[in-house]
Amino acid sequence: MAEEIAGGDLSRLRQLNSLTMVRVLRAGEPATLTELAARAGLSRASTEDVVGALVAQGWVAEVPPVAGAMGRPARRYRFRGDAGHVLGVDIGGHRVRALVTDLDGTVLGRAQTAVAETAGRATRLAAADSVVSEGLRAAGLPAGELWAVGVASSGLVDPGGRVVLSVAIPEWTGLDLAQHFGTTFRGPVVVDNDSRLAALAEQWRGVARYAKDFVHLLAGLRTGVGLVIDGKLHRGFGGAAGEIGALPNVGWIRAQEHLQAWDGEAADLFAAARAGDRSALGAVRRYVRDLSVGTAALVLALDPQMVVLGGGFSRSADVLLEPLRKELDKHCIRTPEVLASTLGEESVALGAVKLALDHVQPQLVP
Amino acid sequence: MAEEIAGGDLSRLRQLNSLTMVRVLRAGEPATLTELAARAGLSRASTEDVVGALVAQGWVAEVPPVAGAMGRPARRYRFRGDAGHVLGVDIGGHRVRALVTDLDGTVLGRAQTAVAETAGRATRLAAADSVVSEGLRAAGLPAGELWAVGVASSGLVDPGGRVVLSVAIPEWTGLDLAQHFGTTFRGPVVVDNDSRLAALAEQWRGVARYAKDFVHLLAGLRTGVGLVIDGKLHRGFGGAAGEIGALPNVGWIRAQEHLQAWDGEAADLFAAARAGDRSALGAVRRYVRDLSVGTAALVLALDPQMVVLGGGFSRSADVLLEPLRKELDKHCIRTPEVLASTLGEESVALGAVKLALDHVQPQLVP
Repeated sequence: MAEEIAGGDLSRLRQLNSLTMVRVLRAGEPATLTELAARAGLSRASTEDVVGALVAQGWVAEVPPVAGAMGRPARRYRFRGDAGHVLGVDIGGHRVRALVTDLDGTVLGRAQTAVAETAGRATRLAAADSVVSEGLRAAGLPAGELWAVGVASSGLVDPGGRVVLSVAIPEWTGLDLAQHFGTTFRGPVVVDNDSRLAALAEQWRGVARYAKDFVHLLAGLRTGVGLVIDGKLHRGFGGAAGEIGALPNVGWIRAQEHLQAWDGEAADLFAAARAGDRSALGAVRRYVRDLSVGTAALVLALDPQMVVLGGGFSRSADVLLEPLRKELDKHCIRTPEVLASTLGEESVALGAVKLALDHVQPQLVP
Repeated sequence: MAEEIAGGDLSRLRQLNSLTMVRVLRAGEPATLTELAARAGLSRASTEDVVGALVAQGWVAEVPPVAGAMGRPARRYRFRGDAGHVLGVDIGGHRVRALVTDLDGTVLGRAQTAVAETAGRATRLAAADSVVSEGLRAAGLPAGELWAVGVASSGLVDPGGRVVLSVAIPEWTGLDLAQHFGTTFRGPVVVDNDSRLAALAEQWRGVARYAKDFVHLLAGLRTGVGLVIDGKLHRGFGGAAGEIGALPNVGWIRAQEHLQAWDGEAADLFAAARAGDRSALGAVRRYVRDLSVGTAALVLALDPQMVVLGGGFSRSADVLLEPLRKELDKHCIRTPEVLASTLGEESVALGAVKLALDHVQPQLVP
């Protein structure tokens, strides 16, 4: 009995060491065993064992020695980002998108298509399946090569990957997205809310990379919220965190009405405001004023390090950011940094990729 | 060099083992070395070393063997809660309070006194000093016996213990509370916001003991918020988390006006409502309706496991809780459990005690 426990502990320790080594290798340049041992805090002998096993498993590769070096140079190792691949899918109200990346998150294939806002479940899923196939073709990969799939969906999603509630997309409530993609792919399929995944992308590769606490606004015709608190994506007890916009008092329902009152696309409104059109400037001012109320409620509640304006409207940050800052100054005790996302329209799909990558890692050692 | 590092690691390991053992001993009944080794996940030999050192330092005591047991019974050990003492002080708008406890948090002395809301800094500090002395006398302890002091203050407090901003208490902004109490006591003096410390008390000994995420309302003539997220008290980047009530749109400023419009004390209003007085019932309904808006904003943003109604008004939970639940149902996507605090008026002071206790532990091993 005692030996069984010790055996379990040992295997757990080896797994932890492997994960640590993968993290160290992914974070830095190719390195020698001695360097890796120091960075991972492991002994030289353990490092040699762990790296050897990772090479055998295909996770780590030896880097060819530098030509012309004196004597026999020490061997150097790198993480093989190309050892595996993941897929990120973003299913939105009027667009679906797919990104295929390697384990470093380097995009190898991308595809997207417009979907009518009124499109039903079958049409939207068919469009998603089609952009996924197109993304895989662009990456030159068969579906069987994917190690994990991340899916971003509008609405509330339960931990099993089922849409519990969707107001924005017709016939979406009750859909089991994990099951839909699970029939096509072998690896884990993980589903989460689109606004939340945009925040995850921002933490991974965006302007909030070094922020422990931030509020991410997915700003478009609707406003979504993703919260990172103490370095972690905050999902809430029932996965329903971030839905503050549902409360009429915080102004977000009215905020989008100011935009809809404008005759034309939101992008045209922002362009007109940029050009100095007074009616457009008035609409933008009213929109920002209402947007700022809900944002201030979040800032006052959480006192985050920064607020990130993401989503489609982040392209118009030049006309939105400064007014938003000023409005927040009126409401807040401490106005945090207000920054525009630089991830563009792929932020949600990129968050889905990160979600998939986060679910690859724990399966590193079988 | 390598040996120096190993020496540091060893001492760090011993410290961690000591802390683990203290945690294990504090959490459970007196136990034998074998039982403690299992609970702490340490070897029998390490356990004997660590417990021996803790006995020598006065943190742990041997329990007298049970009389009449057969053979020589194994020695049993317990944590010595009486090995040290801490002080918790609550400086509020119209009352100051002190609690003196042992390291288990058992209250040995308490004192409180009313202070006029208009009282200035000197008067209020003198009242605080006086209840602290009274509390120490009641506990039969000299001031030098305190190992740490926790102070709860209205307003925003910086990590160094200075009041950055106070709206509720006159002449309070800018006061260095850590310095004030630091001149009297030798141990660490830690200061934090009263609403936040009430949430800490609730997590420690209240109805939120088993909740990872909850919103605590310190409900009185003002409404304060304390947030526990992922098991940790959320302070925010600038220590300003929980100030959502400052936003007029969430209704809390107006909520207190409904109470002030009633001719008499809030407790009388609640009593009249309890007795069925229609005018009182109307005022309570209007109060709860406005209180629920800000509460819903927090619930929608964070999706907590529960909302705890604490503070002075928690005594009137019988007339407040059910209407609050109903209003939240109207606004929220997922209404969490809504519970009344059972800690009563000492909750803030108890949170200050917990803050002090949290600052004793890391100094366990010199």
